[in-house]
Amino acid sequence: MRILVDAMGGDNAPEEAVKGCIDAINEMEGFDIILIGDENRINDILKDANFSSDRLHIKNAQEVITMEDTPTKAIRTKKDSSMVVGLNMLKEKFGDVFLSAGNTGAIMAGALFILGRITGVDRPAIATIIPTKKNGVLLIDSGANALCKPVNYIQFAIMGTIYMRDVLGISNPKVGLINVGSEDKKGNDTIKQAYDLLSRSNINFIGNIEGKDIPEGKVDVAVCDGFVGNVILKYTEGIGSFLFSEIKNIFTRNLLSKLSALIVKNEINSFKKKLDATEYGGAPLLGVNGKVIKAHGNSNAKAFKNAVFKAYAFARSSIVEQIEEDFINMEVEYI
Amino acid sequence: MRILVDAMGGDNAPEEAVKGCIDAINEMEGFDIILIGDENRINDILKDANFSSDRLHIKNAQEVITMEDTPTKAIRTKKDSSMVVGLNMLKEKFGDVFLSAGNTGAIMAGALFILGRITGVDRPAIATIIPTKKNGVLLIDSGANALCKPVNYIQFAIMGTIYMRDVLGISNPKVGLINVGSEDKKGNDTIKQAYDLLSRSNINFIGNIEGKDIPEGKVDVAVCDGFVGNVILKYTEGIGSFLFSEIKNIFTRNLLSKLSALIVKNEINSFKKKLDATEYGGAPLLGVNGKVIKAHGNSNAKAFKNAVFKAYAFARSSIVEQIEEDFINMEVEYI
Repeated sequence: MRILVDAMGGDNAPEEAVKGCIDAINEMEGFDIILIGDENRINDILKDANFSSDRLHIKNAQEVITMEDTPTKAIRTKKDSSMVVGLNMLKEKFGDVFLSAGNTGAIMAGALFILGRITGVDRPAIATIIPTKKNGVLLIDSGANALCKPVNYIQFAIMGTIYMRDVLGISNPKVGLINVGSEDKKGNDTIKQAYDLLSRSNINFIGNIEGKDIPEGKVDVAVCDGFVGNVILKYTEGIGSFLFSEIKNIFTRNLLSKLSALIVKNEINSFKKKLDATEYGGAPLLGVNGKVIKAHGNSNAKAFKNAVFKAYAFARSSIVEQIEEDFINMEVEYI
Repeated sequence: MRILVDAMGGDNAPEEAVKGCIDAINEMEGFDIILIGDENRINDILKDANFSSDRLHIKNAQEVITMEDTPTKAIRTKKDSSMVVGLNMLKEKFGDVFLSAGNTGAIMAGALFILGRITGVDRPAIATIIPTKKNGVLLIDSGANALCKPVNYIQFAIMGTIYMRDVLGISNPKVGLINVGSEDKKGNDTIKQAYDLLSRSNINFIGNIEGKDIPEGKVDVAVCDGFVGNVILKYTEGIGSFLFSEIKNIFTRNLLSKLSALIVKNEINSFKKKLDATEYGGAPLLGVNGKVIKAHGNSNAKAFKNAVFKAYAFARSSIVEQIEEDFINMEVEYI
């Protein structure tokens, strides 16, 4: 198993990416990592690091796609960028999965251009698990498509259903459409048409859900466009930070409250971990012919390490093949 | 000062609406309330209630606009509904402000149809304060428009700026556009055009903000369409409930944790209050020729009471006149 890592992607590249990969190698067996990027800079970080392993390799790539780059143009012109090189290696089977914390639009454009879509899927989507009172809900699309057509929503729903069923073992996952009310005629025209398509499909569609139903864990798969999904995802991150800064204030107020903190410390920390985005690591881009994991742009070493573990689990699944198979069978049922 | 209350609006009407109004009257001086709705049902609730006041009046209205009604059709056909009667009373100056927890689309349609728009405002918007690490941010639009044009965003930004300046006393409020990244070319075409308009305006626009910047309190006014705003608003509610159910679990685990809870109980409760939607009560609909407050559809008596207080404060402000004045002056600057 070889995991291809874009060492130059994200706000803290290459330092945090490389460190996260070292930690991942030190912590778990079963895979090699190929770091793709500027070999001089990568070697500079590696030479000071505390590890002994022949499981870490470097593939030199001189260019970098930045957050400011226009996605399609960057993919076409920066042929020697870590992202384009990595995606080409994935296509040519030099690796089993590609992981990047880089420009989301460019990952999407690159995956479409280099790997291609699975037949029947118009737009791939990023699928992120977010915490709830119950098991967590798959938010799809959580950032790949800032504008969607009705048909995209049903395709997201199908891919999300397959993911929750085959990767997380949930039989007959419940699917909800994120909307501004639970009644069936809510939302704008696109959403209303998406609702109709979902209602007529053979997935386990329970109808519209509101923002408050997400943390309640009312569904297993929450479908939305990538604009709404991205806002929810990042808002969750911000709210988590807000909550724990308030809790910290409460517990550090005086000696007695500090004592009280000691008693519940472990539980508070495990709840904090549940809400912490860096624990989640990365999210798969579903719908392309290959396994791609998008890590958060501001990933630190811990987030990269967890993203590597996520990539490893993703690479071991047969989710891409399953989506291919199901879309062939399901296609007629919603068009 | 007379506050017009739609007694039949919301999931728990008329009971909770009427009870909330009684509590508001009992708790604060300075206004009368006119309850609009089925007088038999309202009187049934009043006769068992513990209050003595001549400040509570009833205006009979036999019809009800439900959550399932099509907004424009309902406004046109249900002439004797509590909502249409109430808005007409506001227009005819039988009251200073109108409060409803009913169908948001119908409130919007009714306000447009009966009160009309302020000159220069294409679409009114709901403006809700949500909690942050700092003072709270005004989320506009938080639910009136499920689809927006670029020009709507700048109008929301102007109205939000006036509200934060004149009602909350924040000089030169900072405005951000909710987007999927902080770089200037992010989002779909509508959002990109909105960004351009905002950049060229004379408001204090700091650029795109991401979901995580909202709880950080990075801006005073967060501009978005009503779809995104409604999802954020209701998601906040759900997250609050999620958080406090987890905290409750943590503190009730054993005797020691229960003891620990006693120490920080007051602080936890005051934080809970900060996140509790029922404390916020209601949000103004800005951009129409009259003062309208939308309360949460599932408002209980406490939420109604707080919405009455909000309506009272709103009625005392000169925000509608200020928006009128500013739009006359500002109009040329963004078109």
